[in-house]
Amino acid sequence: MQSLFNHVGLVARHSKPNIVASLRQLADHLSQAGIKVLIDGDSATPDEAGPHALIDRVDLGKAADLVIVLGGDGTMLTVARLLAPYRVPMIGINQGRLGFMTDIPLHSMLESVDAILRGEYVPEDRILLQTSVLREDAEVVNALAFNDVVFSRGATGSMIEFEVFIDNEFVYSQRSDGLIVATPTGSTAYSLSAGGPILQPTLRAITLVPVCPQSMSNRPIAVSDECEVEVMLTRGVDARVHFDAQTHCALMEMDRVRIRRYRNPLRLLHPKGYSYYEMLRHKLHWGERLL
Amino acid sequence: MQSLFNHVGLVARHSKPNIVASLRQLADHLSQAGIKVLIDGDSATPDEAGPHALIDRVDLGKAADLVIVLGGDGTMLTVARLLAPYRVPMIGINQGRLGFMTDIPLHSMLESVDAILRGEYVPEDRILLQTSVLREDAEVVNALAFNDVVFSRGATGSMIEFEVFIDNEFVYSQRSDGLIVATPTGSTAYSLSAGGPILQPTLRAITLVPVCPQSMSNRPIAVSDECEVEVMLTRGVDARVHFDAQTHCALMEMDRVRIRRYRNPLRLLHPKGYSYYEMLRHKLHWGERLL
Amino acid sequence: MQSLFNHVGLVARHSKPNIVASLRQLADHLSQAGIKVLIDGDSATPDEAGPHALIDRVDLGKAADLVIVLGGDGTMLTVARLLAPYRVPMIGINQGRLGFMTDIPLHSMLESVDAILRGEYVPEDRILLQTSVLREDAEVVNALAFNDVVFSRGATGSMIEFEVFIDNEFVYSQRSDGLIVATPTGSTAYSLSAGGPILQPTLRAITLVPVCPQSMSNRPIAVSDECEVEVMLTRGVDARVHFDAQTHCALMEMDRVRIRRYRNPLRLLHPKGYSYYEMLRHKLHWGERLL
Amino acid sequence: MQSLFNHVGLVARHSKPNIVASLRQLADHLSQAGIKVLIDGDSATPDEAGPHALIDRVDLGKAADLVIVLGGDGTMLTVARLLAPYRVPMIGINQGRLGFMTDIPLHSMLESVDAILRGEYVPEDRILLQTSVLREDAEVVNALAFNDVVFSRGATGSMIEFEVFIDNEFVYSQRSDGLIVATPTGSTAYSLSAGGPILQPTLRAITLVPVCPQSMSNRPIAVSDECEVEVMLTRGVDARVHFDAQTHCALMEMDRVRIRRYRNPLRLLHPKGYSYYEMLRHKLHWGERLL
Repeated sequence: MQSLFNHVGLVARHSKPNIVASLRQLADHLSQAGIKVLIDGDSATPDEAGPHALIDRVDLGKAADLVIVLGGDGTMLTVARLLAPYRVPMIGINQGRLGFMTDIPLHSMLESVDAILRGEYVPEDRILLQTSVLREDAEVVNALAFNDVVFSRGATGSMIEFEVFIDNEFVYSQRSDGLIVATPTGSTAYSLSAGGPILQPTLRAITLVPVCPQSMSNRPIAVSDECEVEVMLTRGVDARVHFDAQTHCALMEMDRVRIRRYRNPLRLLHPKGYSYYEMLRHKLHWGERLL
Repeated sequence: MQSLFNHVGLVARHSKPNIVASLRQLADHLSQAGIKVLIDGDSATPDEAGPHALIDRVDLGKAADLVIVLGGDGTMLTVARLLAPYRVPMIGINQGRLGFMTDIPLHSMLESVDAILRGEYVPEDRILLQTSVLREDAEVVNALAFNDVVFSRGATGSMIEFEVFIDNEFVYSQRSDGLIVATPTGSTAYSLSAGGPILQPTLRAITLVPVCPQSMSNRPIAVSDECEVEVMLTRGVDARVHFDAQTHCALMEMDRVRIRRYRNPLRLLHPKGYSYYEMLRHKLHWGERLL
Repeated sequence: MQSLFNHVGLVARHSKPNIVASLRQLADHLSQAGIKVLIDGDSATPDEAGPHALIDRVDLGKAADLVIVLGGDGTMLTVARLLAPYRVPMIGINQGRLGFMTDIPLHSMLESVDAILRGEYVPEDRILLQTSVLREDAEVVNALAFNDVVFSRGATGSMIEFEVFIDNEFVYSQRSDGLIVATPTGSTAYSLSAGGPILQPTLRAITLVPVCPQSMSNRPIAVSDECEVEVMLTRGVDARVHFDAQTHCALMEMDRVRIRRYRNPLRLLHPKGYSYYEMLRHKLHWGERLL
Repeated sequence: MQSLFNHVGLVARHSKPNIVASLRQLADHLSQAGIKVLIDGDSATPDEAGPHALIDRVDLGKAADLVIVLGGDGTMLTVARLLAPYRVPMIGINQGRLGFMTDIPLHSMLESVDAILRGEYVPEDRILLQTSVLREDAEVVNALAFNDVVFSRGATGSMIEFEVFIDNEFVYSQRSDGLIVATPTGSTAYSLSAGGPILQPTLRAITLVPVCPQSMSNRPIAVSDECEVEVMLTRGVDARVHFDAQTHCALMEMDRVRIRRYRNPLRLLHPKGYSYYEMLRHKLHWGERLL
């Protein structure tokens, strides 16, 4: 097989034996086709990896020119943040239940991957957010997010208060449970639960969605992804900012959190015939064609 | 003055000097009218109380036959939970900004209180919720709430999962940030921020309002206040149940939380001419009469 | 068979041949058991009715002591309004797709009906609304509704303005597409689409749900079903008030529409084991038990 | 005065005498500065216009190089649709109540207009939508909209059914009261009442907002303004498509309605110091700075 990609990284959601078996099956298949396979060290033991090279997950971006994820949307988020700095594309294979990002079913994995390696795919570039947490003008955290940057109250049960700026212009102050700043990718995740709009994946926008705001006129806003969003915490014990609900940073009052589109997009490769709306219809039980 | 009430307790939100001054003014006024005044020990120092008796807050229900609160809705919640077991009525005086429950303005405090003591008032009975947290069949917490019983995820950023039963009948399982079980009184507080309906204060109902549920068809439900609501936590690290956002209990998976209307209502005394809807119009910026 | 009901009316959604066949099958079955069968004249031709008596639909309430509906929730609404004045109970049989009210599947119709006739049923009383439209103090329309009374703009595309009163007390003025006043039965119909809460069927409440209100703080309210709700149209060309979305009355500015709970409830008979929440879970795709 | 604009059209919401007086005052002021003034024939009588030329409203775009509107957002919509084909910019003067688009107060009208004529302004380009209604492949209507294209049921009270396509790809079928396709300008109008997101004015997006959809997962979507949105009515007696709620076209089943961004934007000129978010805070009662 002529493959457009020569070094393919494989990542699986750990701890499920049948997923590891599929990982190994895929690795063997690619290897036989002359492709160098790199298996994420968190996804398999040396025993499970057999003849294939194990690699540290954080090195995937440097070593691979394509990464295939067997898992759910959560694994995709983790890997996306690692790959974006290196502009390495990603493929998602689900394990039975269609994901928002893992669109290839396990049972047709080999055929779908082969076709993509031959160049038969639909590329889709998705933005990430880069966040800088500033405390007394020093940056204390810098992090990427593929879905969302979420400000939230801690466990105390009292609302937080903050001010929001867009491109250094004051927008509003708010008392609420929190604020979600989501990419189009994240617009179908937590943001949707909080009443946010669905953003077409390639729309050049990010959305700000309040979580249980005290004022009922605090509604979701969508702004250009060229904007810098700044949130300054003015009141909140135990407030936090979360990145893709996977990592977080504790916030102190007067912290300023600056959010910008990350310089690189993350490229997803979909099989030919992929339809974002078909996936949404399936996931959200939307109505099919009437005629 | 002939007063229907002989022992009047006074409570103020602590730490604001001008409120303490108003408290003392009210105490002197009542005392001159021959009423026995009992000042909450958390609301004033012996110095500030002057000749008036200080009393432990938890003893107010036993000793007073009426309690007047100078403060915000938060103070009202605390005092309501203490008074309900003793069926002692409560009056709320706001400090400049109309509250949902503190409907008497500070500047007309003396006249309004006098009128109420003479029997010129509109009584309104409001329900409370009694909650029992069961862990392996032992009750670990028993608490009252005047506004709401709120299940919520902790600071982790991951949703909780739970099952809901009404009168022992399974209703639904849910993945969400939490669930609010609110009285009519609480329906204009946190519940409203989460998209819950406003319940008329005397409606014999409680409402169950999901907070950012993963499924969009998980909508607010109102049920009779004769119902027992049971919530069983099936998944959630760091989950909690909060009572009026003032006290809480950490939950463990498989804990069962049973919520029932408390046997006694709490009676609020409003000045003659009080209108619940007028207060709502003011607080929620609703439209005034057009004609 | 010993039946608690001696005169059973049958109604079917007209125009579907297989439904008429089922109607006839049910009629024959009941007749053989010695029950007097009355077939609604709109549901079958004399030919289709065969030996069974045809009766004018509006006379069902007088002549029958039980009515069985084969159809959807729409047919149930029509029949409910006709039966309520006579306190005749109703059974709903669906045609393949579970309805909010038609809980007996067609395939087990005969067994389910037999059991109910023997007295094995769960009765459930549901309220209706009685509406009086007053124009210059004369009543121009008086109508019943089982689901909802809906005020709506006509086809013009401009909002209507109206004032709402509860028990003669002014509540708010509103500019919107309309207002839904729904019974608990109607709370899962149009009201739910407009963001209204679900009311437990036997809750003694009605809900007022604005449709696309201009002010975001105009939120759904639930009030006691003892209340009189009055809506006065202050502005609106081509405004209308609809009853169960089946009949309507054109409104003129300054018309006053008074809505009260109807004196009689409508009794639904459900098979033993019926669960309202199970039906909701099915219809709304709610989560099943996790454990 | 050196003016960047030589032919200035003036439009006022008709029928208010004090507005006509302001119109004349502005006309006299501009005329004295050597600017050719053209008064919209619907806004003033020849008598009211005095020495100034009256012009047919539809000719404003051809004859003027700037148009000033004294009125509300409704008048702005009408004029915007007329000016867009000619790329003539527009200024909005409100009559006491700040509008979403009429940001100059009447009392400082002369100074503000003078400054703008001298070139001291903030330009803002807003998109319009162009809609083509196709019936059996023939175009029956072609119309512009500045706020929104709204599909809605007529006065009947029954929902409509339609299919939505984006760039010829099927998105969903829906049963609802209607669908709003809004520009960023329209996102703060009817769309907001129906639960749509606020789109930053210069975001290259349009939003599709269902009105009371039967399925709760039919949520607002924002798509690129490069997209073609097509709506095909599959069921609906008396359905209509409205343009800015000012004109409409009756729809027949199977009509296809195609919506695209209009080739020209409409340029609004704001005074220096204009802030969109400040206007939103004012109109939506959002929180001011806390610190």
